[in-house]
Amino acid sequence: MTRFIDVGAAQLGPIARDETREQVVDRLIALLHQGAARGCELVVFPELALTTFFPRWHLDDGEGDEIEGDTTELDSYYEIEMPNTATQRLFDEAKRLAVGFCLGYAELTPDGHRYNVYILVDREGEVVGKYRKVHIPGHERHEPWRKFQHLERRYFEESPDGFRVHEAFGGTIGMAICNDRRWPETYRVMGLQGAEMILIGYNTPLDYAPDPSQNPLQAFHNHLVMQAGAYQNGTWVIGVAKGGVEEGVESLAQTVIIAPSGQIVAQATTIDDELVMARCDLDMCDRYKKTLFDFDRYRRPDMYTAITDGPPSLVVAAIETESTKLTPEDAVIPASTKEQAQ
Amino acid sequence: MTRFIDVGAAQLGPIARDETREQVVDRLIALLHQGAARGCELVVFPELALTTFFPRWHLDDGEGDEIEGDTTELDSYYEIEMPNTATQRLFDEAKRLAVGFCLGYAELTPDGHRYNVYILVDREGEVVGKYRKVHIPGHERHEPWRKFQHLERRYFEESPDGFRVHEAFGGTIGMAICNDRRWPETYRVMGLQGAEMILIGYNTPLDYAPDPSQNPLQAFHNHLVMQAGAYQNGTWVIGVAKGGVEEGVESLAQTVIIAPSGQIVAQATTIDDELVMARCDLDMCDRYKKTLFDFDRYRRPDMYTAITDGPPSLVVAAIETESTKLTPEDAVIPASTKEQAQ
Repeated sequence: MTRFIDVGAAQLGPIARDETREQVVDRLIALLHQGAARGCELVVFPELALTTFFPRWHLDDGEGDEIEGDTTELDSYYEIEMPNTATQRLFDEAKRLAVGFCLGYAELTPDGHRYNVYILVDREGEVVGKYRKVHIPGHERHEPWRKFQHLERRYFEESPDGFRVHEAFGGTIGMAICNDRRWPETYRVMGLQGAEMILIGYNTPLDYAPDPSQNPLQAFHNHLVMQAGAYQNGTWVIGVAKGGVEEGVESLAQTVIIAPSGQIVAQATTIDDELVMARCDLDMCDRYKKTLFDFDRYRRPDMYTAITDGPPSLVVAAIETESTKLTPEDAVIPASTKEQAQ
Repeated sequence: MTRFIDVGAAQLGPIARDETREQVVDRLIALLHQGAARGCELVVFPELALTTFFPRWHLDDGEGDEIEGDTTELDSYYEIEMPNTATQRLFDEAKRLAVGFCLGYAELTPDGHRYNVYILVDREGEVVGKYRKVHIPGHERHEPWRKFQHLERRYFEESPDGFRVHEAFGGTIGMAICNDRRWPETYRVMGLQGAEMILIGYNTPLDYAPDPSQNPLQAFHNHLVMQAGAYQNGTWVIGVAKGGVEEGVESLAQTVIIAPSGQIVAQATTIDDELVMARCDLDMCDRYKKTLFDFDRYRRPDMYTAITDGPPSLVVAAIETESTKLTPEDAVIPASTKEQAQ
């Protein structure tokens, strides 16, 4: 029997600073209805889908790396439980429609930890998986030279859990958030656990302040990394964006559904709320997992130790130590220093 | 001072089974001259550039996984020293022109080991780096159902050395061969050593027997993996092909030079001997290495242990053991088994 999941990728347009969760949940429910009408059993929302992307502002009084002083507005963007008063309707509607969903939000734990999370909710409205963002981009303290801030490293801790997969919707499903998608390790760690579908939500400003030469390449890079991750692991990738101009900042839209071949099979064409869907054949994964990317047969884990050795300085030191063990025949001949031609 | 390398990517058309090394070296020297005329200081040739791609034939008498019986023709495709009588002219001409090169060939060591290798030769004609292929694709024994064989796993051992980089041509240069380019670990292990340019030669048949649905995607996959590897590591990638119909087998051409942005900046348009060149600004690497992909700041090596844990079965076991240490709050809620909607 062919296994497939009918998936809706539910892109969101801007969420204003003064938009309430109730207003946003209305939009999410409207997208859930669109998904149900098209036969979706899973609708995927983006990262931080309940509020505006608040890391663009310095919202506390601290001048160092730590949050300090009045955190009233900052805290207002986090959820302390899920579901909660504002989101219960979404869970109820999901159960009524028998459509599961994946939702991103900011989590403030009872003991004061702050995480950027993604939850997977099944067709009965139950949370069956939770992921905390591993790769936190941006910066720790206010940088006044930027047109807008990207203070994720101030407002979120790095996940202590890593990447796991979940048996749900008849398949093996993983989750990642935004910057995670740029790192091949993200897909690989889940690919090694047999991931057949990876759900990725993102908020990506089109203006990358540290190197504006990357700005015109944002859409290219976005698809490049997700297509490569899908192909190299034989997995579906559902990439779901926020788009449009939110509080003066323009975000990448370009929501996509990517097959294990790396091909884009569905893509949003607006910068607003928009659902695109695809029937995702999970057995298609094996065309790659059991041939070219048969990990057991072809991978060389012993050759990859640099990847887990720590920072690059340690990696280089480890490799140099290793080199001293080589026989003269195998040793790398040191390159002579050359004049560079102009 | 801006650092750059003027690089020529020297694609080769088919090499016939009865073509001599002397004839091939004439072609390599012609490409070297083209490179010199365009100001190149480094010309990169493809994988196994001295002979036809012999793994397409079962050339010994063994029925199992091992080479047996008469190996006269098989052995004729390997080099037992480098330079040798046939290739000395190439080294001499490189020195005379002050143009370095990178060359792929089959190596038979004095103690009987067989490797698929790539060497880096500097502008004085000296070998400054040697790489043995890490990822060996294809199969170990004759498979008569195939239109042609891909017996690399019979004819080549896996490299025991791994991926290293070399200080040469004013930069930090790594090498990889053919199937290596499909694995993100290849680029990452060299990226962690500071690679600014990765040279990759390949022979890729357009007909992939284990899954012909991949055939129309060969050119897409080829560029996808090299562009992602370049971008995700902030490195130049020089991908050099054999093209055309060689002994009845059609090979992917599509030689490219790729910038650290992932952009293709030069591409061959024929399926024959053809040199394309680009001025590669090595300092461009830092636009990525020091921003989005600042490895020291943003990578999470502790989260990647699955990548070096061994085969997937071990990875899953290790992760499950880890999960038992979680608090109930953090634990993943097991997904209930669901009926799959058709």
